[in-house]
Amino acid sequence: MIKVGIVGGTGYTGVELLRLLAGHPEVSLEIITSRSEKGMPVAELFPNLRGHIDLAFTEPDIDLLANCDLVFFATPHTVAMALVPELIKRGTRVIDLSADFRLQDVAVWEQWYNTPHTCPELIAQAVYGLPEVNRASIKTAQLIAVPGCYPTATQLGFLPLLENKVIEPMHLIADTKSGVSGAGRKAAIGTLLTEASENMKAYAVAGHRHLPEIEQGLALAAQQSVDLTFVPHLTPMIRGIHATLYGRLTQDVDLQALFEQRYADEPFVDILPAGSHPETRSVRGANICRIAVHQPRDGDTVVILSAIDNLVKGASGQAIQNMNIMFGFDETTAINHIATLP
Amino acid sequence: MIKVGIVGGTGYTGVELLRLLAGHPEVSLEIITSRSEKGMPVAELFPNLRGHIDLAFTEPDIDLLANCDLVFFATPHTVAMALVPELIKRGTRVIDLSADFRLQDVAVWEQWYNTPHTCPELIAQAVYGLPEVNRASIKTAQLIAVPGCYPTATQLGFLPLLENKVIEPMHLIADTKSGVSGAGRKAAIGTLLTEASENMKAYAVAGHRHLPEIEQGLALAAQQSVDLTFVPHLTPMIRGIHATLYGRLTQDVDLQALFEQRYADEPFVDILPAGSHPETRSVRGANICRIAVHQPRDGDTVVILSAIDNLVKGASGQAIQNMNIMFGFDETTAINHIATLP
Amino acid sequence: MIKVGIVGGTGYTGVELLRLLAGHPEVSLEIITSRSEKGMPVAELFPNLRGHIDLAFTEPDIDLLANCDLVFFATPHTVAMALVPELIKRGTRVIDLSADFRLQDVAVWEQWYNTPHTCPELIAQAVYGLPEVNRASIKTAQLIAVPGCYPTATQLGFLPLLENKVIEPMHLIADTKSGVSGAGRKAAIGTLLTEASENMKAYAVAGHRHLPEIEQGLALAAQQSVDLTFVPHLTPMIRGIHATLYGRLTQDVDLQALFEQRYADEPFVDILPAGSHPETRSVRGANICRIAVHQPRDGDTVVILSAIDNLVKGASGQAIQNMNIMFGFDETTAINHIATLP
Amino acid sequence: MIKVGIVGGTGYTGVELLRLLAGHPEVSLEIITSRSEKGMPVAELFPNLRGHIDLAFTEPDIDLLANCDLVFFATPHTVAMALVPELIKRGTRVIDLSADFRLQDVAVWEQWYNTPHTCPELIAQAVYGLPEVNRASIKTAQLIAVPGCYPTATQLGFLPLLENKVIEPMHLIADTKSGVSGAGRKAAIGTLLTEASENMKAYAVAGHRHLPEIEQGLALAAQQSVDLTFVPHLTPMIRGIHATLYGRLTQDVDLQALFEQRYADEPFVDILPAGSHPETRSVRGANICRIAVHQPRDGDTVVILSAIDNLVKGASGQAIQNMNIMFGFDETTAINHIATLP
Repeated sequence: MIKVGIVGGTGYTGVELLRLLAGHPEVSLEIITSRSEKGMPVAELFPNLRGHIDLAFTEPDIDLLANCDLVFFATPHTVAMALVPELIKRGTRVIDLSADFRLQDVAVWEQWYNTPHTCPELIAQAVYGLPEVNRASIKTAQLIAVPGCYPTATQLGFLPLLENKVIEPMHLIADTKSGVSGAGRKAAIGTLLTEASENMKAYAVAGHRHLPEIEQGLALAAQQSVDLTFVPHLTPMIRGIHATLYGRLTQDVDLQALFEQRYADEPFVDILPAGSHPETRSVRGANICRIAVHQPRDGDTVVILSAIDNLVKGASGQAIQNMNIMFGFDETTAINHIATLP
Repeated sequence: MIKVGIVGGTGYTGVELLRLLAGHPEVSLEIITSRSEKGMPVAELFPNLRGHIDLAFTEPDIDLLANCDLVFFATPHTVAMALVPELIKRGTRVIDLSADFRLQDVAVWEQWYNTPHTCPELIAQAVYGLPEVNRASIKTAQLIAVPGCYPTATQLGFLPLLENKVIEPMHLIADTKSGVSGAGRKAAIGTLLTEASENMKAYAVAGHRHLPEIEQGLALAAQQSVDLTFVPHLTPMIRGIHATLYGRLTQDVDLQALFEQRYADEPFVDILPAGSHPETRSVRGANICRIAVHQPRDGDTVVILSAIDNLVKGASGQAIQNMNIMFGFDETTAINHIATLP
Repeated sequence: MIKVGIVGGTGYTGVELLRLLAGHPEVSLEIITSRSEKGMPVAELFPNLRGHIDLAFTEPDIDLLANCDLVFFATPHTVAMALVPELIKRGTRVIDLSADFRLQDVAVWEQWYNTPHTCPELIAQAVYGLPEVNRASIKTAQLIAVPGCYPTATQLGFLPLLENKVIEPMHLIADTKSGVSGAGRKAAIGTLLTEASENMKAYAVAGHRHLPEIEQGLALAAQQSVDLTFVPHLTPMIRGIHATLYGRLTQDVDLQALFEQRYADEPFVDILPAGSHPETRSVRGANICRIAVHQPRDGDTVVILSAIDNLVKGASGQAIQNMNIMFGFDETTAINHIATLP
Repeated sequence: MIKVGIVGGTGYTGVELLRLLAGHPEVSLEIITSRSEKGMPVAELFPNLRGHIDLAFTEPDIDLLANCDLVFFATPHTVAMALVPELIKRGTRVIDLSADFRLQDVAVWEQWYNTPHTCPELIAQAVYGLPEVNRASIKTAQLIAVPGCYPTATQLGFLPLLENKVIEPMHLIADTKSGVSGAGRKAAIGTLLTEASENMKAYAVAGHRHLPEIEQGLALAAQQSVDLTFVPHLTPMIRGIHATLYGRLTQDVDLQALFEQRYADEPFVDILPAGSHPETRSVRGANICRIAVHQPRDGDTVVILSAIDNLVKGASGQAIQNMNIMFGFDETTAINHIATLP
């Protein structure tokens, strides 16, 4: 049994952490912090938790947090980097769901997030928490940077192709569609039901913060620079990411076998039979990435379809998968739910 | 460990039984039948089940079914009544999610379902599977008639008022709103996304099959005849029932206390604090009924708000709750999920 | 051709006024004001208007507004009452879509809106802009208070019953369901797509600001006090109100004929054939109220189903209907659209 | 005033034709046919038309149809080709919204539609009704093949690039997202609200019937063969197509100017300012295609965002635009609606 704290539990990744951790037999949830909601019982803010979580939000207290074995940060960027150094110093392990430690190049981070990084010395030590790539390093990590939602769906789809050098790395396209929960739980006009339902649109075509994160991961896989055209779309649904990925093949290869072999031992990547089309609802609430591989008209363009729940495999579920690896629990503990359908 | 079969697993109550039973430690799922889909792996029809359920659909075979300890019927009406007598004779217990055994008065059943009942002798022996009313009888029942979705939400809301004779029983109103999954998984124009989304409408105001079922239950609670005006509405969402119930008070009473006491020991009825408004999303995927009690302007009209997931507490979850009671398992086993929010 | 100004055009009733007025052959749209968006072209904020409306938002200027023949207020409450007295004094006619002049009893207004009314002297002179009741007074009015959305759907449904004294006025129930656009275009968590879609809930059961407005209108119709239990629900769709109304009959009467006669000459009230169920999508974008009358099991409870588009017949369309009457235009000019279906 | 008939008015393109034609001052709607619904008033099937369309459905009668100046076919494929030859012979002009006359190569048509074409001699004479390409031919055409919805959005987006030879024609990608109304008004499980809402998926990646139609049009524009990777997605909304198009630039060019010039005189193509992202809701119910042009990081990949309403500019609105051109009416008559927003 480990003692766990959550900093910033009022957003969607926070409530999802709570939903999943409530069923974890090895976790004792000790603290959940929120400055704005301090004193409010968690189950009052999130009525789905009534009868399951008795905690109330408290103000962050570094001593109480340091007393935990593990602290999750489910905060906007810049919050984690302010508190993490002290926690690491005191030996508390940290899983950060925000973007603070995802980019290894500080200058790139500072450019995209438009603020100085306050603990660049920790970046090198942070492990990028994509288990399908970094499982060994995750086991011993002190600090995990949980991948973003688009980066998870996109990297898992491109990895087998780039690792095996079967596509041109300088002409990658990711046309990605996200449910509205990707925008978080914050008052805004653009994500009102009245604005975002019955509507489809692209956004941030000129540049999205997940682009450098994805390119970083893909370049590591390809062992060379990559160039990705990344077009995210706001899709009228609550949860789900569907990434449609395009690459130009440089050789003839059995793509289906390539993917099946790459992920043969992965508990949370499901390669669908040839000819399939994954649906986001088949992963809703579940910690899994379902992938299908297509080569239309046997041409030189490969099309990968990759679906995740942005709040689970794209955030909180993956965070717990990291925790399970870090603490030697069965990797699937508490995150082996079946998607609710319909 | 008990052996369980499911007849008719291709509908929404079927896939929901599978989702929930897959997590039940005391259940071995032996058979799932479907004439139309025989031979197809369950996980091909319902991709959420990939990796969790290995069974394929088979044609119903009475010998194989009778070999089970328990058979669920997740079928349209008239299917169960054709097979249940033989199963009961052979000692297999049955939980019927359809309407075949819900009405104690055969003539009423035949009028509303417009067909003769083929085993009226079993009706008297069938137990109406609302645990909050019939827990003791459920324990020893051979045959359970699982309540309908509207009847569950409506009865749980009215019961404390009628049992305690604090409202006029001859002037009850239930204004109910159901998600589209209540109409089942069948090809139809009226429930296409294009027809049912961005739309609200009442239907069947002249008479709905759940009306006699509800009145039967409420009359038992009131120990006298009742008259219910029942207006169902098709609501643009997948899951959820919200019942708004109106009664005219005949005496002054602490309504909040009345409800809290009635359901104090019930694991799956949650009386919200005074002034609350239950949301269907707070019960989505979960086996719970959340209820709030209002008395606007302290007048003589009481307003009860009652929310369930029609496929869980309104169908498959409640069926498993019955099973747990029948077989002496902890009543909450495998149906204690937290609703997924958002 | 009349000169028209709009104060507060950045909300949903504002953009809907623009959509409808753009097609009005007798209207020259001169001014649209918004302090927060001054300088921004209207079509930049509302891209549906590109190519149809060339105006930009400006700061409100009393001289420019007073130069118009008519000014619409599409503002939150308290804005109109600050500007209207001066406009009225200068002879400009005003149609106020907000609540400032809807309640004839100042004390009631101040209680529900929790602020002093700054021009109570204008209240008596304001005409309540429900053409089906006040057409004659509207013709000559200087100041129109456009009814709220719930009040429009609810009053049109109850009027024939109360005017003819066929139901008990002290036991009225209105169970109303509104699309999310009723909450307006403002940043808020509760109406995010992630919070409001796939969800149904009641709200404000203890008291909603439309209640006194509805009771005022119904009391006038009944020529006596009325008591209404009013339960609004937030429904997961953009537009539409469905009001389900319940009354207890005090005499035997041909209800269908009663409604058909009451609205025989009304261009924007459509009494459906007996047995019908109006759908909100059949009025989406259209200035019409569709009503069906039911008497289940020929009992003593009458059920009225009343559907409108909250932004059209419940706000901007009705405002223009008032304008047409005031200025002697054909009453249906520019508001005779067919609902878009699907 | 011309006499117009519609064959097959029970689908979504049929009701949309009715909605739009009802407002056309030069059209007298004489006949609307449906074998399955003969005798039923149109307004009973489509309640939005109550008070606007008095016709009832009748069985198709070639003499009555031939008496019209123009007949629209809003039918599944193979219906038009059975009736059109006789109508053409008798001098009635025809606008076919189905696929029967869209492909100039009969063999390709027969392969994709898997049935013999029964009047191949008419194919050469049919004009492809994309006004932005074929306005002159449309004027005098006897037979128009209205483009499909995906083909309209995709061709309008690629045309300026291919006509000006600024992208590689053999490596085109169209990632397209369609609302569910694209699947038509027919009973089916896959497009139930319960299946298609809260879900995103690609479909028909191996090959979609619109692919040869699009390639035919693009090849004409490019004056050479083209190769398109076409991936359609089913999006959880009623109306709208969003096409995200990718091409590889072969030269440096002012893309924004290229598009603005190409469509400068087009009433129904709107090139948005640089940096924009068109939303499908901004074209909902309106006969317009809104396009934005992006060149991320000034690289060699151009991204075109193209949005239409699949039932208007993608079907019925475009059909009426063709009619207006054919009969010398103002091209925008009856199809100049403003999109309803929100």
